[in-house]
Formats: sequence, structure tokens, C-alpha cells
Amino acid sequence: SPSSPCSVLPLLSGVTAHSFTTSRQELVLLRVGHGSDEARPVQRGDQLLLLPGPHRPQPQRGVEYEYRAVEWNDTDYEKINPIKYVPALQDGDILVSDSLAIILYLEDKYPQHLLLPQDLKRKALNLQIASIVCSSIQPLQCYAVIGLIKGKLGPDESLQIVHHYIDKGFRAIEKLLEGCDSKFATGDEVQLADVFLAPQIHAGVTRFDIDMSKYPHLERFYKAYMEIPAFQAARPENQPDAPSPPQ
Amino acid sequence: SPSSPCSVLPLLSGVTAHSFTTSRQELVLLRVGHGSDEARPVQRGDQLLLLPGPHRPQPQRGVEYEYRAVEWNDTDYEKINPIKYVPALQDGDILVSDSLAIILYLEDKYPQHLLLPQDLKRKALNLQIASIVCSSIQPLQCYAVIGLIKGKLGPDESLQIVHHYIDKGFRAIEKLLEGCDSKFATGDEVQLADVFLAPQIHAGVTRFDIDMSKYPHLERFYKAYMEIPAFQAARPENQPDAPSPPQ
Repeated sequence: SPSSPCSVLPLLSGVTAHSFTTSRQELVLLRVGHGSDEARPVQRGDQLLLLPGPHRPQPQRGVEYEYRAVEWNDTDYEKINPIKYVPALQDGDILVSDSLAIILYLEDKYPQHLLLPQDLKRKALNLQIASIVCSSIQPLQCYAVIGLIKGKLGPDESLQIVHHYIDKGFRAIEKLLEGCDSKFATGDEVQLADVFLAPQIHAGVTRFDIDMSKYPHLERFYKAYMEIPAFQAARPENQPDAPSPPQ
Repeated sequence: SPSSPCSVLPLLSGVTAHSFTTSRQELVLLRVGHGSDEARPVQRGDQLLLLPGPHRPQPQRGVEYEYRAVEWNDTDYEKINPIKYVPALQDGDILVSDSLAIILYLEDKYPQHLLLPQDLKRKALNLQIASIVCSSIQPLQCYAVIGLIKGKLGPDESLQIVHHYIDKGFRAIEKLLEGCDSKFATGDEVQLADVFLAPQIHAGVTRFDIDMSKYPHLERFYKAYMEIPAFQAARPENQPDAPSPPQ
């Protein structure tokens, strides 16, 4: 239905979900072959950053946006986000970067499809889960990936760091959700926590071979996410600037 | 004055500012001697985690709280915050962890001293700066400190990682604040960004020998922060459970 929270996700696919895969990777994207450890940094000319453009609110079906890919070596991007991570959002004269900051901005500016519940307890749980993903997993995962690319970490060491922090975060989230029997993390509708969990789980499964059976709640949510067209559309390989798969 | 935003900071000193020094350190605190590189992990029995207790709102002078230190090896703490970082906030039947999630919760629950402005552009800037501190600096700083303690990183390597990420974050924040001439980061009153910046700069200066003259805006704010009693009270060495300084 047009008022379902999911209808905002095509927006988030550009603004958020896709970008989690590339965000915090310092303008570098790994391409990992199916079922192998083959990985390469993108080449000069690959497009992988995204810069969503001006929003045109369309109350009945979310918010339209312009998706703009940025080349990894684009020095102009620094003017938009000085720390050079993706995503960045430009909305009129407002520039905001960092996925959580962007989403909280969108909550205020385009409240037609809120991702945060009114109930303070459930709202806090959403923010806490989002924080675990974006502060306790992502930065360390990125550090390990960059370290591998730059040759500062060996492949085993890099993967060990990734696994350690994903496991630590996922285990904590599982405990936070003890007894939860809803379809998604904090209810039967997609909320903020899900928007952070979906791409993190997807990266864990597709890039780092995480065994999700150790995290039964997250495994269940992931199956539910994958049935939502907006989450499917948000997968990195479905973005306009996704590199073509290795031959 | 009682309605100054600063009067909420004694709360945040327990909830937030102190804890940045110990947070994301996986229950380990470094004690660094004055002007030396001497550092040791705390001993069994040192108290260093804090667990603020139930809030009793006092509209005229912020919110009272009970400060509860937790021993680093307290397994019960895992029931409060499964990822075992500090701080955690317990407010009636609501448990919330992660500094940003806690502050956003307090904004809703005790709105008498808001740290976020109404203006969306300035609000987004506050959230973006807070995110740089808590996602792009803190987790990597912590990783480096823990790596040193566990012997996985040498002292030079550890300090290099810390310096790299503090510099990266601080440079980005300086650019975001280009042309800013206010007393604090986003105005002449303390706001959310300041509450994240103050402890991060303090840790940079006192623990990691960061030369703040490279970051003129941040250097100016730091001087202003240090004149505010609430920020002084929030310094880690002024907490009830601070280890005594090395002999």
C-alpha cells in the first residue's frame, strides 16, 4: 500500500542501503566472486560512490531522489562530504552525510513514512541496534577491508577482524531481541533497525561467509527482508553504478 | 542560569562524557602517566564502567541520576548491555546503551534542556559531527588501544592508527565548520556536537598527544569547553570511580 513504510525504501536504497556496502571503505569497493575469496579494488573509472540529489517530496509514494554516482578519485566529492565516505545527501542548500544523520534528517523533513516509532522504548531499541551496526561493526569491517587492499593486513587476519566484530555485534543484537517474535526486528513493519540490519547481514552473507544460523532472529529477518522489493532493489549489485560481476 | 543548556551536562557527565573515555574499550581502561607513554590496563578490582541509574526529572536544574560504576569483569553487565560497552542508561523499565542512542532518548524524554536545535540544517550538522566522533574516530581509536593492551599491535603501530583516525575526523569536522565564528561548534550555546567533541578532544590532548593547533576551530572550542564547570566535572579523572593517578 502507498502508506506502507516500505515505500520509502526505494529512497533509502539510494541514500542508505546500497551505500552501506561501500560506505566507510574510503572510496574503495571490493568485488568478491561467488563462492571464492577473489577480490579486487575497483579500477580507476569504476563508479561506486553515490550522491543522492535534490528531493522532490511525493507524499503518496515516498520521496523521489536523483541518484548520482561519484568516481572514487573525484576530488570534488570532498567538498560535499569532507570525510569522503558515502552516502551524502543534498537537499536544497542542506548537505548531510553519514547514514544515521541522513535518516534522522529525513524523519524530520519528510515525515510521511517514518522509520522510528513514537514509543520511546522501541525507538531507543531501534537507535541502539542502528548504532551497533554503524559504530561497532561497520568501521572495523571497513578497517579490515582497507587494510587488506593496502596490503597492511593479510587475508586471514583481515577476515578474522571482520568476523570478530560482526559476530560481536550480531550476538549483542540477538540478545537485545530475546523473545522477539515479530516479522522484523522491532515489529511487523520495517523500521530503522531493519534498514541498518538488512545491508549488514547481506554483506556478512555474500562477502564474508557469515553463518547466519548462529543468529536465529537475524536469519529470520533477513529472509523477510529479501522478499521486499525495495530491499532487493537496494542490493549493491542492483545499483546503476555497480561494477559488472567478474567473468 | 538554570535554563542554560549547560545544566543538563552534569547528567551527561555521567551518561556520556566520562564514558567516552572508557567506552568502546571492551571493559579496559588505559592509565597514561603525565608526559610519558607509560600505560597499563586496569587491574582486577579497578572500577571503571559506569551505569547511570534511574532518572528523577528535576525540571529546574536538569535531570538527577544515580551514577553506578561497574567492574570490568562484572558478567551481570552483559544483561544490561549485551555488547558490554559503556555507558548504559536505565530509566524505569527502559534500558538503552550507546551514547548517541541515549542522548536521543533523553531529548524525547526530558526535553527541558534540548541539545539538538530545531533548525534542520543545524540539527543535521550536529548529528553529522557526533557521527564522525562516534563512528569514524572512536571505534578505531578503541581498536588501537585494545590491540596494544592485548599485544596484537606495537606501541608505534597503535598510536599511528589512533593519530590517523583522529586526524581524519578532526580535519573533516574543521572543513564542515569552515567560516564558523561561534563560541561552540554550532552556536553560542552547547549543543549535541559539543558533547561529543569535548571528550574526544580531551582524550586526544591528554592521552594521545594530539597537536590541536592544526585544528583551529576545535582548539578554540576546547578552550571554551574547559571553562564550563559541567565539562570539567565530566572529565574522566573527576569521576567517582576514576583510578588514582600513577605514583
